[in-house]
Amino acid sequence: MIYLDNAATTYPKSEVFYSAIDDANRNHAFNIGRSSYNSARECFSIMEETRSLLGAIVSADKSNVYFASSATEALNQIIYGLDLNKGDNVYVSPFEHNAIMRPLHLLEEKIGISVKVIPFNDETWAVDEIKCINAFALYPPKAVFLSQVSNVTGYCLPYQSIFELSKTFGSVNILDASQGFAVLPIKKTTSIDFIVFAGHKSLYAGFGIAGFIKTGNVVLNIVKAGGTGADSLNLNMPDNGYSRYEAGSPNIVAVYGLKASLEWHKKVDIEKKERELTGILLSELEGLNNIIVFKPESSARMLGIVSFAIEGYLSDDVGIILSDEFDIAVRTGYHCAPLVHNFIKSIDYGGTIRVSFGAFNSEKDISELIKALKTL
Amino acid sequence: MIYLDNAATTYPKSEVFYSAIDDANRNHAFNIGRSSYNSARECFSIMEETRSLLGAIVSADKSNVYFASSATEALNQIIYGLDLNKGDNVYVSPFEHNAIMRPLHLLEEKIGISVKVIPFNDETWAVDEIKCINAFALYPPKAVFLSQVSNVTGYCLPYQSIFELSKTFGSVNILDASQGFAVLPIKKTTSIDFIVFAGHKSLYAGFGIAGFIKTGNVVLNIVKAGGTGADSLNLNMPDNGYSRYEAGSPNIVAVYGLKASLEWHKKVDIEKKERELTGILLSELEGLNNIIVFKPESSARMLGIVSFAIEGYLSDDVGIILSDEFDIAVRTGYHCAPLVHNFIKSIDYGGTIRVSFGAFNSEKDISELIKALKTL
Repeated sequence: MIYLDNAATTYPKSEVFYSAIDDANRNHAFNIGRSSYNSARECFSIMEETRSLLGAIVSADKSNVYFASSATEALNQIIYGLDLNKGDNVYVSPFEHNAIMRPLHLLEEKIGISVKVIPFNDETWAVDEIKCINAFALYPPKAVFLSQVSNVTGYCLPYQSIFELSKTFGSVNILDASQGFAVLPIKKTTSIDFIVFAGHKSLYAGFGIAGFIKTGNVVLNIVKAGGTGADSLNLNMPDNGYSRYEAGSPNIVAVYGLKASLEWHKKVDIEKKERELTGILLSELEGLNNIIVFKPESSARMLGIVSFAIEGYLSDDVGIILSDEFDIAVRTGYHCAPLVHNFIKSIDYGGTIRVSFGAFNSEKDISELIKALKTL
Repeated sequence: MIYLDNAATTYPKSEVFYSAIDDANRNHAFNIGRSSYNSARECFSIMEETRSLLGAIVSADKSNVYFASSATEALNQIIYGLDLNKGDNVYVSPFEHNAIMRPLHLLEEKIGISVKVIPFNDETWAVDEIKCINAFALYPPKAVFLSQVSNVTGYCLPYQSIFELSKTFGSVNILDASQGFAVLPIKKTTSIDFIVFAGHKSLYAGFGIAGFIKTGNVVLNIVKAGGTGADSLNLNMPDNGYSRYEAGSPNIVAVYGLKASLEWHKKVDIEKKERELTGILLSELEGLNNIIVFKPESSARMLGIVSFAIEGYLSDDVGIILSDEFDIAVRTGYHCAPLVHNFIKSIDYGGTIRVSFGAFNSEKDISELIKALKTL
């Protein structure tokens, strides 16, 4: 199989990841504990080291790195954990995922927050700064959610400038880095409050491990409550420490895998690889007829993901042909992003055909894909 | 190491589990999809088969089996998903875990539900039926949460009779089967609405996979929202189907492991093993001085877990000696159960020394433990 669905989950992973998971399952799959037996204490140390590795990527201290079972869970914890009230304005870009849009919509219906879309130019995909300032002035942002990299189009959003602006209005700023964390650098800044990461995507680790890094001073309310392995007689969740946001048995095996992946990650220039392959695919697609590529004015702002459609085809049908006849795995449809398809005008095609690269793809994968597309 | 902490997480697992996880990571770690490429469709089928295996354990259809990342998450989804309002009475036993107690306590503080403890006799540990009926009559139960097996004491709760009674008052009944699912049979009944299971405990699968089985007609409100891989343009979570409660990328690798473990499980009589070892340990402990065993009148109602204390010792200190000097892993302290320690009177000892058995323990593990305890 030629795997071009790395935006859904990176595959394959590194050999060190596979070995780490197997070793952890066989030798370290304990329920961590601070005062119990040695093996359980060891697990606690590994979690600490992994937090350090994650924090270092964005110059944050390990004490601000919190694990969750998925980026969706992390985003739910943030969205419901913020002090959002009736009438509060929460801004998103047109590129956001349902892991953000659906919890926010629930709060729209439940408590009457107002979800607003930051105006982006649908030709260039640049943010319309004047309209944005006006919107913020008229309806001050309580929170702003932006993706680092769009999961549909690979567009690297200009989140820095938007967050800097919204911060002047006192907004809590959340960067959903599920698609780019550790691949595309995130500059240290005081304008971001939370950064969300997904282990099984850009980190080349497994399902079941993700989280958020607190890079500001916002304390979230408790969303998920439960046992924390300490202070058991207290019916309240702890005020401080990891446990505040990490109820339940930690997925220590997934953490071992993540730690191995993070160490491997440092040795591989994935950004460079993704940029090269993105460039090659874009230029190959230009040579084909009837292809509509959904891309920003500057393809330098794209990373690892290319979405397109073919005139006369529904995207799902192309996906099935590529899989059944050529053993090429792409993802087709709407990719859990509810707003972007109106913005890029892909609805008539039933969404997009999305090709997404990972560290293990090569130019040959692209030539096979192009060969297949030429038969259509 | 002699591992006697199976109530925290079972260890080791079966060889088939280890192989299944490694194989799934290497060959099947895709993001499931119903309309994408073949490998993603295959993952969907494996999830279906695993739901069938889980459902069969309690005579439920696979369509009622929902996955979560942990039993804590499943319980949070149920507790916050029920229509609980100010003044509603929610009952628990004195044995319940913080995965139940803390979310309920949050609702006490937030919306003013009333959490009440079902009266149990602290000599026999039987439910005080007359007091219970009176309590239900005076303060009708909106929901009742009971453990199948107490994670601290191994006590198999008389949940059937309590649920039958509370059902006559229209209660929604939730069985937390984290400690006993698939080991201790659960009779088919119309008095239970939800059964919660934890993959990494009695099912001998990994961290990161758990869930609940809907055995009644209660539809939960959405707690966790996000992408579901389908109907992406809809800002609402689906009304029906698994997706309603399963936002985010499914942990397909953990599901492959769970499936293998469930198949292995059928071939091993774990209940018999646990009963034998529990009996042997109880009789060995009787022969020691200064040991207080926290147990019900009838030890036939205990399964796989024995909690005790030693006069003159804090339980944590015993745990450290057992680990450091004898390489024996037990869990000590309060075990995330906030109410039971007043009930069993273990607070003066800093909680209990908990020994918990799994399928891979043997009589020899007990004799080593007893030998170690004799040195104290």
